[in-house]
Amino acid sequence: MSKEEKETRQGEKSRRKAELKALRGKLMAQQQEIRAAGLPVIVLVEGWAAAGKGTLIKEIISELDPRFYNVTTHRIDPEARSRYPFLYPYAWAVPEKGKIMIYDTGWMEDCVRKLMRREISKEEYKKRVRTVNEFERQLRDGGYLILKLFIDIEQGEQKKRIRRLRENFETEWRVSAEDLWQHREYGLFRETYESFMEKTGKRIPWHVMDGSKKTAAACEALSLLTGMIDKALEKGRFVGKPFEKDFPLLKMPKLAEVDLSPALTDEEYREQLKELQKRLGQLHNIIYRKKIPVILCYEGWDAAGKGGNIRRIARPLDPRGFDVKPIASPEPHELARQYLWRFWTRLPRTGHICIFDRTWYGRVMVERLEGFCSEDDWKRAYNEINEFERHLTDWGAVVLKFWIHIDQDTQLARFNDRQNTPEKQWKLTEEDWRNREKWPLYEEAVNEMLQKTSTENAPWFIIESNDKKFARIKTLKIVIDALEKAIDSRL
Amino acid sequence: MSKEEKETRQGEKSRRKAELKALRGKLMAQQQEIRAAGLPVIVLVEGWAAAGKGTLIKEIISELDPRFYNVTTHRIDPEARSRYPFLYPYAWAVPEKGKIMIYDTGWMEDCVRKLMRREISKEEYKKRVRTVNEFERQLRDGGYLILKLFIDIEQGEQKKRIRRLRENFETEWRVSAEDLWQHREYGLFRETYESFMEKTGKRIPWHVMDGSKKTAAACEALSLLTGMIDKALEKGRFVGKPFEKDFPLLKMPKLAEVDLSPALTDEEYREQLKELQKRLGQLHNIIYRKKIPVILCYEGWDAAGKGGNIRRIARPLDPRGFDVKPIASPEPHELARQYLWRFWTRLPRTGHICIFDRTWYGRVMVERLEGFCSEDDWKRAYNEINEFERHLTDWGAVVLKFWIHIDQDTQLARFNDRQNTPEKQWKLTEEDWRNREKWPLYEEAVNEMLQKTSTENAPWFIIESNDKKFARIKTLKIVIDALEKAIDSRL
Repeated sequence: MSKEEKETRQGEKSRRKAELKALRGKLMAQQQEIRAAGLPVIVLVEGWAAAGKGTLIKEIISELDPRFYNVTTHRIDPEARSRYPFLYPYAWAVPEKGKIMIYDTGWMEDCVRKLMRREISKEEYKKRVRTVNEFERQLRDGGYLILKLFIDIEQGEQKKRIRRLRENFETEWRVSAEDLWQHREYGLFRETYESFMEKTGKRIPWHVMDGSKKTAAACEALSLLTGMIDKALEKGRFVGKPFEKDFPLLKMPKLAEVDLSPALTDEEYREQLKELQKRLGQLHNIIYRKKIPVILCYEGWDAAGKGGNIRRIARPLDPRGFDVKPIASPEPHELARQYLWRFWTRLPRTGHICIFDRTWYGRVMVERLEGFCSEDDWKRAYNEINEFERHLTDWGAVVLKFWIHIDQDTQLARFNDRQNTPEKQWKLTEEDWRNREKWPLYEEAVNEMLQKTSTENAPWFIIESNDKKFARIKTLKIVIDALEKAIDSRL
Repeated sequence: MSKEEKETRQGEKSRRKAELKALRGKLMAQQQEIRAAGLPVIVLVEGWAAAGKGTLIKEIISELDPRFYNVTTHRIDPEARSRYPFLYPYAWAVPEKGKIMIYDTGWMEDCVRKLMRREISKEEYKKRVRTVNEFERQLRDGGYLILKLFIDIEQGEQKKRIRRLRENFETEWRVSAEDLWQHREYGLFRETYESFMEKTGKRIPWHVMDGSKKTAAACEALSLLTGMIDKALEKGRFVGKPFEKDFPLLKMPKLAEVDLSPALTDEEYREQLKELQKRLGQLHNIIYRKKIPVILCYEGWDAAGKGGNIRRIARPLDPRGFDVKPIASPEPHELARQYLWRFWTRLPRTGHICIFDRTWYGRVMVERLEGFCSEDDWKRAYNEINEFERHLTDWGAVVLKFWIHIDQDTQLARFNDRQNTPEKQWKLTEEDWRNREKWPLYEEAVNEMLQKTSTENAPWFIIESNDKKFARIKTLKIVIDALEKAIDSRL
């Protein structure tokens, strides 16, 4: 190398360093604006083994205030993970508004590795790619900024780096058998990485960076990130427009058309209850062994009898294998994240039954009617919820949704009964009366919800509950029927 | 059996059933009062394999509203668990105020099994027994009701039940190899269970129940539980009295005695910083491989330079192996639990470094001075915190605590600088000025804290930070020194 060349290189190097410093300073200044604007930022860092992901992340965070960012890595707890949907750990980790979450590898590596190891079929892989696209879109539409980086190195460079790491006692352990395998299968991995990026880069683009030049890569990443944040701060929160995908919808009646007269005698009830509960208890055993996750969703009018209905389902279940999740209004840390987050984090393990007492459908009922979200938000939710439920059924879950239905007269009678019975008074609040006044608005919202979200994989059932006994027996029968089908289909 | 005997038995049986129903009704009614009183209730159900723990829990919960109770079981995620202190999953699961948490086996089975399997030494077992006693006392002193049940069956009865379960295809899977091993080693297990109960039953008693009579056992459990709740509702929240245990305390100077003049030149700083950070980076690698957890606690005056100090520690660390946890004021779901809960749930995995930016010492500083807890509460906290930190060091953690120290003049100068520099203004709040006025009160509280909680296993270090450069170098040196010692001692 001539002296001039050397000088040029030196000059280049110090220019890069100055640039890096300036960009870091910029990001540091942006932290406050991100916080003030309540902007959540996701940085996904993917790439080859030994490509320098750790170093890049270090460069990004080095000047940041720890209150405003986090790094999440998902290389642990393989047992726990295998019992949840594959997106589960990534959905758990989404940042709060005003914070940056850096994913040190994430859903891309997860999908690609599993395919390469043949732990999932090609068909399953396709589903996952679709799921990833839906997940990313939902986050973007919910106001998340997403930056996706892939650090690329050539096979020769990877070889050099792996050799260097292995030569040094202190770094030798960093090279895993998996890394060596990736290196041997470099060509196949490249193909798969590229095809994954092609399939998931249309809406939220991938940025492929040259990992052989570390400082340049760090500059590029920081420049992309700060540029993206600048733009978002200028334009304000992105709100996705609603659109409808063609999910196979089941035809549902309007609530007004439902005949609420069905009833059972005490004797019919007692007999059937006993028999059905016994059967449900048996099925729970099988579900548990076959590791089928079950999600039962309860919605319905106030005083329709959700609680008693749930208890009749829960009674025969082994308490180690089921959980009831009551859903109240969201807490601050829940409001600070995409609205489905608090449901992602409450999912059951495989083999367990989870009963949601009220659900994510709050979005298109109370949140819609009380103005807790924008019109775009709740209109978008029909499709987002259909996707979310498909993620659950793709994972293997049985998802059943019950609308516990009564008429206004019955509600009034039950309200009055609650008011006049001391031990029931706590069940009745001012809000119940207020909601009652909005019955027609709710009815409209419920009708729309039933029309738009009763899918083949996650159907709605209207449960006539003017007679609670009838309602309980009907629900039990539906659950038993669905579990039997699920068990049969997985022999 | 004579006819009369039969009739007596029948009568006994239906009397029991009626009693059970009445007790369930009572508990159902108590739910509201528990909620209103903000009383948290823990029911620990332990016992022999096949003793009927599941059935008992079912009886307890069958009439409860799912909003007010939960059942937690800890038979999963062995990998995740081995990377945290053994109490971790149980501490995670403690209920919120106003709720009941039922532990379907817990810390007793955990300790006994591990000892029987020889996965822990006798010495380690003793430590765990002590830890359990401390954990239970801390919860009780924090207002938790704790009911501990052990369901007992004879070896012959266990044999019968195991045989019955194995004969039936549907229940066969419920008998694990571990259960059979317990049955073979029945005598040894009995001895260990009994000795565990003796060692942990003095403060919060164990109730041993005859598992061979299921309805009677359920009645007994419900009667104990409802009786305990009645008493607590009558007497109001229990508040433990402060007391001091003799932890080996290190002698600490008063803050006023600390010489704040030490300083470094820019050149000294740069040189040492580079070298020390390099060393810390190397040590992080070793820590990671040796799976040593590291907990660094930062407290200090406003504007003392905590943030910058933390960043100098974090800079050389691999982002996959460390985390900074900024501690702000507690959120509602955190306030609803014992005050250490939000720290239990933020512990690092083994091999990881966790830097707490403010800590559990808020209890004896801001919470004490602002009256967010009672005098008994914060006075009790010195001992509780010493115990908590010993739980961490018993687990194998390196725990270091830094008080970042400046004088009042330096603080004023830095406040003014912040006020006059636009990009620093966000760092200065009205509260900072208010806290500054309370300097003498805080100084007194800090002095007391340093005297009472600087233990050999988790020492405090006062970091002179009028010169931030000096402070950073000193902190780095302390961390490096402690890590080197920890690594050496675990060769």
